[in-house]
Amino acid sequence: MDLLKSHRSIRKYKLDTIPDEWLNDILECGIRASNTGNMQLYSVVVTQDPEMKEKLSPLHFNQPMVKEAPVLLTICIDFNRFLRWCKINNTHTDLSNLLWLLNGSIDASIVAQNMSVAAESFGLGICYLGTALYNAPEISELLGLPDGVIPVTALTIGFSEVVPEMNDRLPQRAIVHFEHYSDYSESEIGELYKEKEELESSQKFIRENGKQNLAQVYAEVRYKSSDSVYFSEKLINWLEGQGFSFDV
Amino acid sequence: MDLLKSHRSIRKYKLDTIPDEWLNDILECGIRASNTGNMQLYSVVVTQDPEMKEKLSPLHFNQPMVKEAPVLLTICIDFNRFLRWCKINNTHTDLSNLLWLLNGSIDASIVAQNMSVAAESFGLGICYLGTALYNAPEISELLGLPDGVIPVTALTIGFSEVVPEMNDRLPQRAIVHFEHYSDYSESEIGELYKEKEELESSQKFIRENGKQNLAQVYAEVRYKSSDSVYFSEKLINWLEGQGFSFDV
Repeated sequence: MDLLKSHRSIRKYKLDTIPDEWLNDILECGIRASNTGNMQLYSVVVTQDPEMKEKLSPLHFNQPMVKEAPVLLTICIDFNRFLRWCKINNTHTDLSNLLWLLNGSIDASIVAQNMSVAAESFGLGICYLGTALYNAPEISELLGLPDGVIPVTALTIGFSEVVPEMNDRLPQRAIVHFEHYSDYSESEIGELYKEKEELESSQKFIRENGKQNLAQVYAEVRYKSSDSVYFSEKLINWLEGQGFSFDV
Repeated sequence: MDLLKSHRSIRKYKLDTIPDEWLNDILECGIRASNTGNMQLYSVVVTQDPEMKEKLSPLHFNQPMVKEAPVLLTICIDFNRFLRWCKINNTHTDLSNLLWLLNGSIDASIVAQNMSVAAESFGLGICYLGTALYNAPEISELLGLPDGVIPVTALTIGFSEVVPEMNDRLPQRAIVHFEHYSDYSESEIGELYKEKEELESSQKFIRENGKQNLAQVYAEVRYKSSDSVYFSEKLINWLEGQGFSFDV
């Protein structure tokens, strides 16, 4: 509980490697997590080889922890193993659609979070790399993923060199609704985001980017529409090339 | 660690309610989890009202724990709050695509798993309801979710009445790959699934469904193509009605 409440992402690691038994335990905790129909539609690729980290680094937009952390885990949806099993048993089912991409991403994420908590329970630090989805085709080629295996997220794991302050979060009442969703009035939105907007780090962000407010930094610099559309279309093209369909 | 390794889904609950402080702590652990750019693109709807559980029950295909568990949490992607904040601040970004549905489902799932682990650390039992996605439009209407709020999974939480045996899992070597994905030979697939296929529960499944093997039960009964296509198209239609696009 205290572990979960004190989580912070670790972006600076010591050089020390993680003992094999620890890594084994971390992976085992991932596999024990709940999953859809116990189909286990996921795989985890472990990267420890410096040469592989060097190649993966630009695909994660050169975030330094990719090369610095002793272990990088790429967590993938895996329809390949299950469908191969079906084929050998003279059967087949269609998983090449939005529903199963979402089911798969949920299950893979639950595995990832169990591994994160397990790593933190050893006193290790972790950081998620959301970039796995942005360059899924290139990561897939590098890791030799067959069709139906889709990287959804990645985790760096290692001994923390620098433990930063905990990140801000919106107050719980911004996130939690009782019985029905209570939509926000304009003044409620203002009040819920006020503390976040007033942080010195947010003010610095606004100044550095020459924007008027924090929302503009998010919407026009960090997560702008043109990137969103570009990377989404790239992902759809790649998936359609593997036989996925988003038509109705 | 032991907690993560001994997880089992709980489908029979005692009538006892969960203390408010525990629920508060469970929700707080969810919110502390890592998420994309600290945008917190998720909401949690808490259901405790028996009348609401009664209405939600058929939408989760009448799984009895929906009505029996004291607390049901519906974990949603929430683009609404963030985009409302953007609008008030005279800006906008496009999240209505596959990339952000996956980003959102990953973040919501990580929240869900942190809440599960927190609940289990109180000695409570949990069960995921993957059915949230299947009937997302109906659940959305019942919970009053605005456009851009998408239920991705649900959790029942309560005191365990019956603690079942742990579920089987494929051996770790079936899931984990080092440096490169090593695709499976036909005989490897057979060997990896052997223990699962030989379980008495699997044999019972095969007999009851009049099939020749376990893969056929999965592919032709539990997760058949017609359901997969039907529920995926239903989801896409609903999302396109909200302005999401899957075209390239």
